[in-house]
Amino acid sequence: MKLVTYTYQNEEARLGFLFNDLVIDMEDFGEVANFPLPDDMLDLIDMGIEIIDEINDLIADTPEEYITKIGVPFDKVTLLAPIPRPRKNIIGIGLNYTEHVAESARTLDTTGKLPQKPIIFSKPPTTVTATNTEVIKNTKLTSQLDWEVELAVVIGKTGKYVPKSEAMDYVFGYTVINDISARDCRREGQWIVSKGQDTFAPMGPYLVTKDEIENPHHLSLSLKVNGIEKQHSNTKFMLFNINDLIEDLSTVFTIEPGDIIATGTPAGVGAGRDPQEWLYDGDVMEATVEGIGTIVNTVKEI
Amino acid sequence: MKLVTYTYQNEEARLGFLFNDLVIDMEDFGEVANFPLPDDMLDLIDMGIEIIDEINDLIADTPEEYITKIGVPFDKVTLLAPIPRPRKNIIGIGLNYTEHVAESARTLDTTGKLPQKPIIFSKPPTTVTATNTEVIKNTKLTSQLDWEVELAVVIGKTGKYVPKSEAMDYVFGYTVINDISARDCRREGQWIVSKGQDTFAPMGPYLVTKDEIENPHHLSLSLKVNGIEKQHSNTKFMLFNINDLIEDLSTVFTIEPGDIIATGTPAGVGAGRDPQEWLYDGDVMEATVEGIGTIVNTVKEI
Repeated sequence: MKLVTYTYQNEEARLGFLFNDLVIDMEDFGEVANFPLPDDMLDLIDMGIEIIDEINDLIADTPEEYITKIGVPFDKVTLLAPIPRPRKNIIGIGLNYTEHVAESARTLDTTGKLPQKPIIFSKPPTTVTATNTEVIKNTKLTSQLDWEVELAVVIGKTGKYVPKSEAMDYVFGYTVINDISARDCRREGQWIVSKGQDTFAPMGPYLVTKDEIENPHHLSLSLKVNGIEKQHSNTKFMLFNINDLIEDLSTVFTIEPGDIIATGTPAGVGAGRDPQEWLYDGDVMEATVEGIGTIVNTVKEI
Repeated sequence: MKLVTYTYQNEEARLGFLFNDLVIDMEDFGEVANFPLPDDMLDLIDMGIEIIDEINDLIADTPEEYITKIGVPFDKVTLLAPIPRPRKNIIGIGLNYTEHVAESARTLDTTGKLPQKPIIFSKPPTTVTATNTEVIKNTKLTSQLDWEVELAVVIGKTGKYVPKSEAMDYVFGYTVINDISARDCRREGQWIVSKGQDTFAPMGPYLVTKDEIENPHHLSLSLKVNGIEKQHSNTKFMLFNINDLIEDLSTVFTIEPGDIIATGTPAGVGAGRDPQEWLYDGDVMEATVEGIGTIVNTVKEI
């Protein structure tokens, strides 16, 4: 199931799912299927990971014309970020692809040694923006704005000390994040200013539920700037895979429904190029993860 | 006004304020005063900073016996953290007192140069705990657990690009945070694992509203371990004062009602001592900020 948060005809934000070329309002579908369903993504996640199977069953059991009748055309809705307002900062993972560790060590202040444990940072909820929106480059703060395509994992269950072998039981689904980074905004090595500015987490276009992704560790991911491919890799090259990350993160802090883990970016960022490349006013980024989709964002200098 | 989040006789968490030696339930007081008031701290903050004056006026206009009648004895309630569940990560400020910059450079991996801009990090909402609770030391993760008393500022209004001169208009009040830090949990320099583990942000005992603190830049703050004073300084020695911090933070990201800024710790942390001192099972910390109060927490090794 591809879940979306969207607006239609300028009304308030709604939760929906894709059905052929239609968006079906989740709450309305619940009425059709005689099963109460919420109008907000976090409320849905709070119902538990089992709700995915439940809704899939309801869809299968409902005559197609009943569903299409309440749909609106996909090209008529405005997509918001799947989780427009996360409950805590997005959990970012740094230096999680070998080639990116190498390019970062060449050009940034990180070491070339492979990390022994995941490098964790955070992006505030105010960083989140949707596809087809602007990423704000504040020229008073940065002249080194950079891109980073990433697979993001959405947690579906509260957990502490989750063993690797059970980690997948805690996953609700996946989305795409472009982990925008202002390379010259590090302070005493801390990354939150570099990665935490408003609009620095374009996210979407959908939250794809776990059942639709056969193997999250074998997805190609790529990013284009103005149509030219800059990053192209595969999630199989993660140093710490999703199981490792969930075990480690849940040892540090309690993971909770709706938590978002941005699992790190592969090589090909602007900082790692020779010469280095940065983003400027009007540049268009397209970040894609196989099986999930593409988010498109334009840089706006202020 | 000293605001508290508390439980009484094992019932659910409530919002209240101190009145002599009583805790007055805020929602119940609203009924007495014929002015609807909420049962949750974040809901109160969302009413706007002006609500402080409003409630102070209501208290002044209400016969004392009406208020005391609905009170419960302070020593019979259990205090929770004033904001038990912040809406985003707590915003931490590192290296914000000169002497602490020096001691950190001697003994940790930071430079001795005074920062040119505030050093920002974050502590997830799951770090929050109340006074009179245990701070969990996971001995598999750390053998270098440390204390850090700090003045915490609670934001009362949404702001972006707030100038220093107007910064105080965005403050709702103050509380005390002990910014517990596992010094050996830094990863590629990032502090979130060091400072972000569950229970690493004891907070309280009260949220003291802005009107009660004449000058937040002239408050003594101190911390004792097992009765022995380890830190003793004054907020006047902050490198970046509250006005500076709000201007800077709101340039980076939108500040929002209920946001919490932990403004940094003075010298005297365990890592800065010769020899270094760490926290062990059963150690009792008392963190005090003048005009706000003291939080007491015991270390529990697991």
